[in-house]
Amino acid sequence: MDAAEFRRRGREMVDYVADYLENIEERPVSSDVEPGYLRSLIPTEAPLEPDNYDDIIKDVERVIMPGITHWNSPYFYAYFPASNSYPAMLADMLCGGLGCIGFTWAASPACTELETVMLDWLGKMLKLPDHFIAGTHGRGGGVIQGTASEATLMALLAARCKTLRRIRAANSELSEGEIRSKLVAYTSEQAHSSVERASLIGDVTMRMVPTDSTYAVRGSMLKKMLEEDKAAGLIPFYFCATLGTTASCAFDNITELGPICNKEHVWMHIDAAYAGSAFICPEFRPLLNGIEFADSFNFNPHKWLLVNFDCSTMWVKKREDIIGAFNHWQIPLGRRFRSLKMWFVFRSYGIQGLQAYIRKVGVQLNDPPCIFSLNGTVCNDLVGSNDLNQLLLKRITNSREIHLVPCQLSGVFVLRFAICARSTDSRHIQHAWRHITQLSCELLQENH
Amino acid sequence: MDAAEFRRRGREMVDYVADYLENIEERPVSSDVEPGYLRSLIPTEAPLEPDNYDDIIKDVERVIMPGITHWNSPYFYAYFPASNSYPAMLADMLCGGLGCIGFTWAASPACTELETVMLDWLGKMLKLPDHFIAGTHGRGGGVIQGTASEATLMALLAARCKTLRRIRAANSELSEGEIRSKLVAYTSEQAHSSVERASLIGDVTMRMVPTDSTYAVRGSMLKKMLEEDKAAGLIPFYFCATLGTTASCAFDNITELGPICNKEHVWMHIDAAYAGSAFICPEFRPLLNGIEFADSFNFNPHKWLLVNFDCSTMWVKKREDIIGAFNHWQIPLGRRFRSLKMWFVFRSYGIQGLQAYIRKVGVQLNDPPCIFSLNGTVCNDLVGSNDLNQLLLKRITNSREIHLVPCQLSGVFVLRFAICARSTDSRHIQHAWRHITQLSCELLQENH
Repeated sequence: MDAAEFRRRGREMVDYVADYLENIEERPVSSDVEPGYLRSLIPTEAPLEPDNYDDIIKDVERVIMPGITHWNSPYFYAYFPASNSYPAMLADMLCGGLGCIGFTWAASPACTELETVMLDWLGKMLKLPDHFIAGTHGRGGGVIQGTASEATLMALLAARCKTLRRIRAANSELSEGEIRSKLVAYTSEQAHSSVERASLIGDVTMRMVPTDSTYAVRGSMLKKMLEEDKAAGLIPFYFCATLGTTASCAFDNITELGPICNKEHVWMHIDAAYAGSAFICPEFRPLLNGIEFADSFNFNPHKWLLVNFDCSTMWVKKREDIIGAFNHWQIPLGRRFRSLKMWFVFRSYGIQGLQAYIRKVGVQLNDPPCIFSLNGTVCNDLVGSNDLNQLLLKRITNSREIHLVPCQLSGVFVLRFAICARSTDSRHIQHAWRHITQLSCELLQENH
Repeated sequence: MDAAEFRRRGREMVDYVADYLENIEERPVSSDVEPGYLRSLIPTEAPLEPDNYDDIIKDVERVIMPGITHWNSPYFYAYFPASNSYPAMLADMLCGGLGCIGFTWAASPACTELETVMLDWLGKMLKLPDHFIAGTHGRGGGVIQGTASEATLMALLAARCKTLRRIRAANSELSEGEIRSKLVAYTSEQAHSSVERASLIGDVTMRMVPTDSTYAVRGSMLKKMLEEDKAAGLIPFYFCATLGTTASCAFDNITELGPICNKEHVWMHIDAAYAGSAFICPEFRPLLNGIEFADSFNFNPHKWLLVNFDCSTMWVKKREDIIGAFNHWQIPLGRRFRSLKMWFVFRSYGIQGLQAYIRKVGVQLNDPPCIFSLNGTVCNDLVGSNDLNQLLLKRITNSREIHLVPCQLSGVFVLRFAICARSTDSRHIQHAWRHITQLSCELLQENH
């Protein structure tokens, strides 16, 4: 394919994407294919000679679309938002065209520099403390990670390295192996599975801190565990707080937890992957109070801030803690020019436009505690028993009119309703509500 | 921005990218900006109100382009190829439009399934042993990682987990901590820095194996170290071989190394990030002989197989080794629909088209050993002393006509010449050669 054909095919693809997004409501939101469906639809080997491009495009509808869960459908209420936006897509096209790999400053200065400044822009939108902003006299700054999993892991590894050095400096008789075997990390029992996975990768013990009735970790709970563990000769070194848990969007109490961590030399990482975008609105910013105690902080603009996946933003209080540990800010060395997406989105929407978008999605429902309504996550256990709830979800899924996933809260099988797509408005939510209510009534009638 | 505006702006962006790539020779290949150049060119905060899109696009030339190292310029001979292609860019546009996050099968079945089949297609192109192909009765299969660093790390973590289990099962008196402190990983002294970094992250000792006169690890060298370490009570568990080292494109002798690793229960991972694409040509495939001994294998289609970054393909002999260790194939959970790029590229070029591309780049030069000419990496130390070579590179860099980076080989500062861009042809190489020769002559004259 030469440049002339790319101009033509590129236009067609732009139109295909625009058509897809404009008419996405007409497609069933989820797929009904069986595992293995795709293999039988395409050859077992790559073609020797080039295929016709028109045939490739025809195969997008024939092969790919039947197996797509439409994350940008207004009837998609599962997992979390992965809201794409047109400006982000345009920036990503530019990123692909430039094709530079920003693994060092010299490998493409603009790539490193725009990222640093975009992290400052976003940090200021969130009113992060100055020490997280690179363009100040502080020692911190921000970086784009691929996912929150990587941010959690990098923070844990940096904390491990820092603690090993600190303990060794004070106890030269202890071997690194001895210290390492005493290290303990902590997180909420409601934390995302990737947090525990970071401890498996980093090969350190992790303890799950119990939560209160709102599924939040309180200071007293962590304090009790730290004291137990210290009394047993262990070395607490890392606590991962969550602001906006995956299951119920619960917020750990970081104003209580932060001072405890600071006093005990426990690195506090804050994972706000899911809810963090909301903090650009003044009315939601109080939920981030306590950030001043954190050693690192992360959230995903690729979830709810209209920046296409992947773009997970991470700030550290002291750059040297993370760069000193591994020479780099992150696990991969090569990186796409992802900050272009942030630049295009922030400028195309403006701060007010982004705030308006957050407010539109962050609906306030009447009944559940407001913490649940932030980010549009509401949980319902309409029907009562776990078995019936499970059956209800199955019927909802089979209907393919809306798409939900469940979660477990205190042993209850809960249907979790998260407003995700950029195009979802009250019309869609009302439809979803009627649909859930109708299927619930049918189910209850059958079972009485 | 609505769909209608996206249609218009998308067309403009397609044209911008096509113009950029068609006229890339007119831009100096590397940048002359000073660190920090960009911050002063843009505001210190995001705009409150939306900026005009035309202003954003104007700023691409004003702000971004001066700081770009043009990886797709035919005068770019630094680092490694990051060759983009038009079909890959089209596929990536589709990926952005769909915006699905394939972290489980159900999250978008097509995403998981196309990836599995594309890894089979590519595995067959490379004539990998059947046990790496998912669509057979074997226990292996492939996955897309973001970068080779992640593949190296995942393999090391899987090997660590597997070895801990094996040793514990046979020695129930040993604690996990005791076993872990005895684990030793190995790699070539010529291996990429990311390999040593994987051992830091995985918190295990790594020893560097010396190389022969071609910078390759031989069986006898590894065997000697394994025997020393076993005699000292240590537990060798992981060896990362390199096919195509970063500095000189050297190939470790895996036909010698493989049987040793297999016998000693040492996981052999093969990192062919740089050179692996060449193995799709029958004449280069013998360099992969010995792959049958590997537990895992990785290379980067995003380097030299026309698939835009990121796309690093990894195969494992036994899926359960890697999934069993961490529930997932990789560090991040979320993932883009990257296999679309492979599908579009393989079909648009056909196997023969891809082979022709490899052959075009894999020039055969007269003098250096052929192993150096594979992948276009040739190293020269024309001038003699390290100081003069360094000065030569500085002049080449300052000229901004071509772009090279250096490497160290046996203490010699070497100018490394890698053919990278899709558009490089003999005309550009001849120009580069004349340019290097002229600057070298000037330098020698001044110094005699």
